[in-house]
Amino acid sequence: MNGAESLVRTLIASGVDTCFANPGTSEIHFVAALDRNPGMRCVLALFEGVVTGAADGYGRFARKPAATLMHCGPGMANGLACLHNAKRADTPIVNIVGDQATYHAPLNPPLASDVEGWARPVSQWVRRARTAREVGIAAAEAAQNAQRAPGGSATLILPSDVSWGEPGEEAAALAVPRREKSSAEQVNGAARVLRSGEPAVLLVSGAALLPENLPFAYAIASATGARLMAPTFNARIARGRGRPPLEIVPYPVDDAVRLLTGTKQLVVAGTGAPVAFFAYPGKPGIVSPPDAELHVLARPDQDIPDALARLAAELNCKPAGVNPAAVQPLPQDGPLTPERAAAVMAALLPDDAIIVDEAISLRGAFFATTKHAAPHDWVQVPGGAIGGGLPLATGAAIAAPGRRAVVLEGDGSAMYTVQALWTQARENLDVTTLILSNRKYAILEIELRAAGAPQGNSASDLFEIARPEIDWVKMAAAQGVEAARADSVARFAELFQHANSRRGPFLIELVL
Amino acid sequence: MNGAESLVRTLIASGVDTCFANPGTSEIHFVAALDRNPGMRCVLALFEGVVTGAADGYGRFARKPAATLMHCGPGMANGLACLHNAKRADTPIVNIVGDQATYHAPLNPPLASDVEGWARPVSQWVRRARTAREVGIAAAEAAQNAQRAPGGSATLILPSDVSWGEPGEEAAALAVPRREKSSAEQVNGAARVLRSGEPAVLLVSGAALLPENLPFAYAIASATGARLMAPTFNARIARGRGRPPLEIVPYPVDDAVRLLTGTKQLVVAGTGAPVAFFAYPGKPGIVSPPDAELHVLARPDQDIPDALARLAAELNCKPAGVNPAAVQPLPQDGPLTPERAAAVMAALLPDDAIIVDEAISLRGAFFATTKHAAPHDWVQVPGGAIGGGLPLATGAAIAAPGRRAVVLEGDGSAMYTVQALWTQARENLDVTTLILSNRKYAILEIELRAAGAPQGNSASDLFEIARPEIDWVKMAAAQGVEAARADSVARFAELFQHANSRRGPFLIELVL
Repeated sequence: MNGAESLVRTLIASGVDTCFANPGTSEIHFVAALDRNPGMRCVLALFEGVVTGAADGYGRFARKPAATLMHCGPGMANGLACLHNAKRADTPIVNIVGDQATYHAPLNPPLASDVEGWARPVSQWVRRARTAREVGIAAAEAAQNAQRAPGGSATLILPSDVSWGEPGEEAAALAVPRREKSSAEQVNGAARVLRSGEPAVLLVSGAALLPENLPFAYAIASATGARLMAPTFNARIARGRGRPPLEIVPYPVDDAVRLLTGTKQLVVAGTGAPVAFFAYPGKPGIVSPPDAELHVLARPDQDIPDALARLAAELNCKPAGVNPAAVQPLPQDGPLTPERAAAVMAALLPDDAIIVDEAISLRGAFFATTKHAAPHDWVQVPGGAIGGGLPLATGAAIAAPGRRAVVLEGDGSAMYTVQALWTQARENLDVTTLILSNRKYAILEIELRAAGAPQGNSASDLFEIARPEIDWVKMAAAQGVEAARADSVARFAELFQHANSRRGPFLIELVL
Repeated sequence: MNGAESLVRTLIASGVDTCFANPGTSEIHFVAALDRNPGMRCVLALFEGVVTGAADGYGRFARKPAATLMHCGPGMANGLACLHNAKRADTPIVNIVGDQATYHAPLNPPLASDVEGWARPVSQWVRRARTAREVGIAAAEAAQNAQRAPGGSATLILPSDVSWGEPGEEAAALAVPRREKSSAEQVNGAARVLRSGEPAVLLVSGAALLPENLPFAYAIASATGARLMAPTFNARIARGRGRPPLEIVPYPVDDAVRLLTGTKQLVVAGTGAPVAFFAYPGKPGIVSPPDAELHVLARPDQDIPDALARLAAELNCKPAGVNPAAVQPLPQDGPLTPERAAAVMAALLPDDAIIVDEAISLRGAFFATTKHAAPHDWVQVPGGAIGGGLPLATGAAIAAPGRRAVVLEGDGSAMYTVQALWTQARENLDVTTLILSNRKYAILEIELRAAGAPQGNSASDLFEIARPEIDWVKMAAAQGVEAARADSVARFAELFQHANSRRGPFLIELVL
């Protein structure tokens, strides 16, 4: 067996059985090895940002790493933005990056590049295999290290001669180290301040927001009077009817500061003190009050569910169900507005949907109305690199068959990784993409105002994407995805039901 | 004036008057500064790979740097692949990358990233501005260093508070150091071996392939009996009727080795010994004979035109015109093949066109037939990072108004940076895009065979992009570009003439 074959076999043995791929010449032997080793599902994407973003979405729902297969440094470079997002979501991913043959690289051929230099900022483990014999163990270590707390990218660089070289040796799966448990001081300290009666916020992220763990956080908050909150962006949040409500730290700094004013005790699990997305002249960087005391119940790399369960036990409170609110009726017909579109989506959302949120400036209305929608996961782009949405939905749909992914996507954001639609069509994935088509980078207008700068001609020109208008129905159809445009409540309701009642992807352009 | 304004003013003063942009929040003050300082043409792109690829195309034809404006690390990461190509083409570019405010970065906000780490592998100069006052001089240094031989990216990182901070100071343009001239030994040594009568190859790239310099190389080769050749990939090659013919080192290693067999003397200018694009088991990495002597007439960073002119003078030869070959007639009507499509393009090519070649597996026929087409520049992707084609044409069309850019683009390659079509429509650029639609990554089939691996189901599945088929007419129309499909010689001829006779972009899908 050659190095490539030992890689494929070891990955499968390590539970890595899905590979998002955009291979090139240096990965040819990996591809050939797939032919000899069934058990690895390969999903082709036409751009590496789709590869890595889909692996991120997959990892968040499969709760184990997918592999990515990318071509040399520049191929991986195309995937870095979505790997940055995955890093901020603590998503385990095993990146396989081909490279020049060991003896060819010194000749500086055209595609020679600094793969390690590019991989390191987004990886918690990087290794270059140097002989065929070490590929197997390196692959096992990659799978292990991707899942090492808090979870992230493990990047294995595979020179082509190492890939085609003999002998490869399949390696056994390596155990993933258990997460460190919170100390008694961490748990007891949190209990003490929450019992103190001082105004407190319980700010949770990561695994605390999974459906099985969030009820513990809610019980703790309910029992102590603390406010239950999550940071502005999170990997996923269990929400909807019958699930614990929680507040999100608002994106605008002034709103965040206002909401957190008066907080004396800040207990965090899976996150730290809330940091503003950007700095603005004269505004604070940390949006919680400077005099609030910070207590770390569990760091992002600690065992967050264990900490919540122990704190709940210490406080003698048990997770209980939340009374589901009444189903909200469909709004009356009329022209679409963000609020009406959000109401339609909330009323007609399929059970157990995965809502992928890259709505940027239009998020608010949709987040508010879905509070009482059917139970769902709300998936975000914690790294802030634009273009995460369509690939995230693609990967989530592969990891969670039977669940409908619904993407809230700005028209500007959608264009960064628009090639994801093709993969959705190819794999017939249950993804409903809602393009919130306002034909501008609306967030930049907001930011320009926040920065106190007047909006002149150049700014207007750089923020509007209406010249030419993007025809989203054609864009989807060009890639094999059925699509339609909605400009009224009734039409959107009809299309949304149609999209969700069938198998496969559908795109709806919401003219807002 | 704030830092951002000093940046804009200094760039303009340094001759950098075109900016390809995909800005974000941290670049807001740069955008605002544009409003107060006319003189900078801003070209919006919907993806950073288009930004950097267009800057590459611009730099190759404007012969000076454009600026790029990108958002934080992940935004720049999206542009790295095309910056890699620009690096390999020695194209001067000034990259402006926004970043977190200096005092905000330590809080590790979502978009915090290692901008320097990502920029360095593709940049010949990287600097982070730390105060508003130093932005002006840093911008002047960036413009200077982008043009420092051999030419490349100068990347200036601009934290948002440095951008909005006061006082900025406009700096004067800095002189670009002259290129080092080849030594007398270099010139005389080349003359000696070319006079020796031993089988010699004159292998030239870079500025040697510009229309004003190539005749010197041709005169030298003609006078001495040396074969005039260029590497497999070059920034641009002056070609067509009345221009010196030259051979290209073939991409397949066996073909390259065969063509160069017997060479005893290898004289290079603007390049080194020819290196295979990839390594293959049992095949050489350098494709010229091991016993060929290498003589460096001019390194890529030396003054190549000067070296050629001095060598020509030393050899007493003068550039002379080349007799134009007869215009090739249009082929007879019939189904399109690569050869017939190439013949149509060659017969109907507008004068002084810019042919951008990212045809990958189908290059051969088009390169052969255009030898006697109207005079043109043949533009390649010397870095081999896929997706260079459409952005290169976009930037070249902006740098060279009045010239028609014709893109030969594989359907697989086109998808990486397909957003370039939108910018072409927005700016009404004279670009005719020919999608060579074979619905597969044909190069990978070729490479799999070259690697000696059999093609099984997984390989076939990962190499074909026909499921679903991409509808290129819709893809173009979705972005405001008129398009049509051609499956016969007559239809292609009609469409190609139509496309080139009007202003603005047009896309033709060639069903091959």
